[in-house]
Amino acid sequence: MNKGFQDDSLMLHTDLYQINMAETYWEDGMHERKAVFELYFRTLPFGNGYAVFAGLERCLNFLNDFRFSESDLEYLEFELGYKKDFVAFLKDLRFTGTVRSMREGELVFGNEPIMRVEAPIIEAQLIETALLNIVNYQTLIATKASRIKQVVGNETLMEFGTRRAHELDAAIWGTRAAFIGGFHATSNVRAGKMFDLPVAGTHSHAMVQAYRDEYTAFKKYARRHKNCVFLVDTYDTLRSGVPVAIRVAKELGDEINFAGVRLDSGDIAYLSKETRKLLDEAGFHDTKIIASNDLDEYTILNLKAQGAVVDVWGIGTKLITAYDQPALGGVYKLVSIENSEGEMTDTIKISSNAEKVTTPGIKRVYRIINNSNNKSEGDYITLEGENPQEEDHLKMFHPVHTFVTKFVTNFEARDLHQVVIEGGKQCYTTPPIEEIKAYVTENLELLWDEYKRSMNPEEYPVDLSQLCWDNKMRNIQEVKQSIRNARAGF
Amino acid sequence: MNKGFQDDSLMLHTDLYQINMAETYWEDGMHERKAVFELYFRTLPFGNGYAVFAGLERCLNFLNDFRFSESDLEYLEFELGYKKDFVAFLKDLRFTGTVRSMREGELVFGNEPIMRVEAPIIEAQLIETALLNIVNYQTLIATKASRIKQVVGNETLMEFGTRRAHELDAAIWGTRAAFIGGFHATSNVRAGKMFDLPVAGTHSHAMVQAYRDEYTAFKKYARRHKNCVFLVDTYDTLRSGVPVAIRVAKELGDEINFAGVRLDSGDIAYLSKETRKLLDEAGFHDTKIIASNDLDEYTILNLKAQGAVVDVWGIGTKLITAYDQPALGGVYKLVSIENSEGEMTDTIKISSNAEKVTTPGIKRVYRIINNSNNKSEGDYITLEGENPQEEDHLKMFHPVHTFVTKFVTNFEARDLHQVVIEGGKQCYTTPPIEEIKAYVTENLELLWDEYKRSMNPEEYPVDLSQLCWDNKMRNIQEVKQSIRNARAGF
Repeated sequence: MNKGFQDDSLMLHTDLYQINMAETYWEDGMHERKAVFELYFRTLPFGNGYAVFAGLERCLNFLNDFRFSESDLEYLEFELGYKKDFVAFLKDLRFTGTVRSMREGELVFGNEPIMRVEAPIIEAQLIETALLNIVNYQTLIATKASRIKQVVGNETLMEFGTRRAHELDAAIWGTRAAFIGGFHATSNVRAGKMFDLPVAGTHSHAMVQAYRDEYTAFKKYARRHKNCVFLVDTYDTLRSGVPVAIRVAKELGDEINFAGVRLDSGDIAYLSKETRKLLDEAGFHDTKIIASNDLDEYTILNLKAQGAVVDVWGIGTKLITAYDQPALGGVYKLVSIENSEGEMTDTIKISSNAEKVTTPGIKRVYRIINNSNNKSEGDYITLEGENPQEEDHLKMFHPVHTFVTKFVTNFEARDLHQVVIEGGKQCYTTPPIEEIKAYVTENLELLWDEYKRSMNPEEYPVDLSQLCWDNKMRNIQEVKQSIRNARAGF
Repeated sequence: MNKGFQDDSLMLHTDLYQINMAETYWEDGMHERKAVFELYFRTLPFGNGYAVFAGLERCLNFLNDFRFSESDLEYLEFELGYKKDFVAFLKDLRFTGTVRSMREGELVFGNEPIMRVEAPIIEAQLIETALLNIVNYQTLIATKASRIKQVVGNETLMEFGTRRAHELDAAIWGTRAAFIGGFHATSNVRAGKMFDLPVAGTHSHAMVQAYRDEYTAFKKYARRHKNCVFLVDTYDTLRSGVPVAIRVAKELGDEINFAGVRLDSGDIAYLSKETRKLLDEAGFHDTKIIASNDLDEYTILNLKAQGAVVDVWGIGTKLITAYDQPALGGVYKLVSIENSEGEMTDTIKISSNAEKVTTPGIKRVYRIINNSNNKSEGDYITLEGENPQEEDHLKMFHPVHTFVTKFVTNFEARDLHQVVIEGGKQCYTTPPIEEIKAYVTENLELLWDEYKRSMNPEEYPVDLSQLCWDNKMRNIQEVKQSIRNARAGF
């Protein structure tokens, strides 16, 4: 299959151009210049009014393991032809930078820095691809999960998507992100083991087929499992599955707790109502109905509108693949770099796609919370060194339609970043997953309901400070002027 | 973060219900009954006329490592509460089954068994989730890549999607699948190392920003890289990027090979034509144009219709996430099981969703190739023991519209399965990746063009043998009868 290189490190989990650039910087002696990159996305996924940040824990694991393995170095030198001197340099390279990041579970919006990496440019560049790979996916799934959570209210949500996830890592880290976004349990046992998540599951159609009839299958299952959830749609839900489940539960009496029945096909609205009737008629008022089969927030809303009686929703494909929008477009952009005199100078990328023009400068992002009602007025992006808390009347204006302005008084300006790695050393401990999940709930309380609607929510304000805006305009003008000068000089 | 359990095994990468069923079978003493499961999908993805199977190598790795680790067993016993006797049994459990599988690169269609697992039911059940997780994703991506390959003709295809992939594994195994489907190179260095794939990449916008102007950046890059591809859209493609690239190439002359320019934003049709003109006017007729920016088979077709002049296509998000259909619905169904007398008996799952009714019985799948033109007449599913090659006039009929029939003579019936694991031991070596890729090309030659159209292709015939069809009908009737009997007995 390969030339014997072991997959013993994640350091090469990067795009080749990062290595080429690293070599260019190193050759030129500028690899140690301090650079500041910001990681952010431009547009919220699913047309949602907010996103839920997830992925920090995995990023920290990755950064802590920053080190080329022997086989990485051999591959670079002998297969890809990088020169010995450069490869020797890479051997001793470690991550020495400082990372500020939002916490997992933070609500995040378009064009605001989720993470800020300050490091020698060679280090900052080599980690770009993996950070984006991690944050893009996990944030996407936490956000999708939160959307689903918004429509189910107090019902229980289970993540059942492993078999449709995009390979193994997505199943594991996706279900963790779903938990952060509001899910209660996963079917994936390895994820349960790794992250201390509640795991859930009963039996499949195959077990009924193996015993040929439901009566035998349910009885056998009940011998070892006191809390019984029976899958009732192997042959015929209402004529066979549910009546047989009830018969078994009656026969076994107190020997089992008839916890639920699971519907996995057919019309869930109709079947759940009829199943509820059968269960109630038999006196099993506490037996829950668990529904699954290609569900998402849209289907659930519709089923509820039709009066579906479901206590537990099992969500697979549509969540774990973020089916209706399977990618978040997070980017990682250079905003400032040390020049040859050792001063930091801001950088910008201009683009013929206007929304791709970056905002230069080292920045912070604050959530402006109105003390009178404990609701957020919006997020406020400043240059490093500004302190919005010092303003009596904070002026916020729309970053595109700048004539849209408002003044805020009596507010708390909450810095959304924490230093998670300082000088290459992790200085932050990921909270227990239940705390991260609670943090999302708490954060959602800060938002007006208008921002939380699953369809056509209001746009949450993410504004630039005046200094940040002026700096951006100045940088654009400078680039335009330098292009004109260069052309004149041809 | 967790209770100290190490992620040192993939054995728990399964749904909890598999463990619950395993316990039920074991408790009941039927865990060693031989079961036959088939892995297949029902509907082709993307409305394509065929799918390209990928994932076998990873499945073999998984099966070879079938073994609960100490920490898996501790988790099951002390966290999930499985009983000591059952956990002790799991400790020594190994995979002893036999697996027949299509080869990677095989063209595959709906409702035909890609893999057939024959094993003690407890083993066959425990591997279901991981096999589906792997095959669903990798087959999806190989198929998407093949669709893209169909529209680009002889141009070069590069996989650039790592940052948008669903976590790390998807980036790695997805790019391998893309290579199988027809791609030529990947940007992911780790994938290059693991699978001996060609890797490709140049530099990013950040490098231009770091050097502030393109002239300096390109020159610095050229010092260490003889084959130069310059990214030309950091500030202004036609007024700055391309002219500066040409200037640098002229100044450096033979010191570099001006291999290409990369366009990553803006209107690719317009920019590529204008860029080609500028390059040709400067005498750089061999310098390639590389385009990227949210491309897929639809965009490429459109750009080509508008006369875009692109030599190399860099495909990211839309491929690696299978953006327009991010899940393949592969399933794994019990088709036969040993009864208490030691005889194999067929099993079926009925469903109120008609397309979810399974086809019972241990089966084989043959590709029927017409010797007169070396084109495939369709695939033919038989029960084990049938040999279609012995027929003079093979009757093929549509599995839903059974009145649609044809007779085939002078044909080769090619068994699409190979034994890849026998009695728990791997007895098959994955071919080098270039061979797998060539196998796809060779296989596509067998298909009429009508099946290969990217939109609205003809439906390729996948037919059941008469015996297989009769067996299915008999099983359906038996289940219906037994439900009637059971209800009468209530």
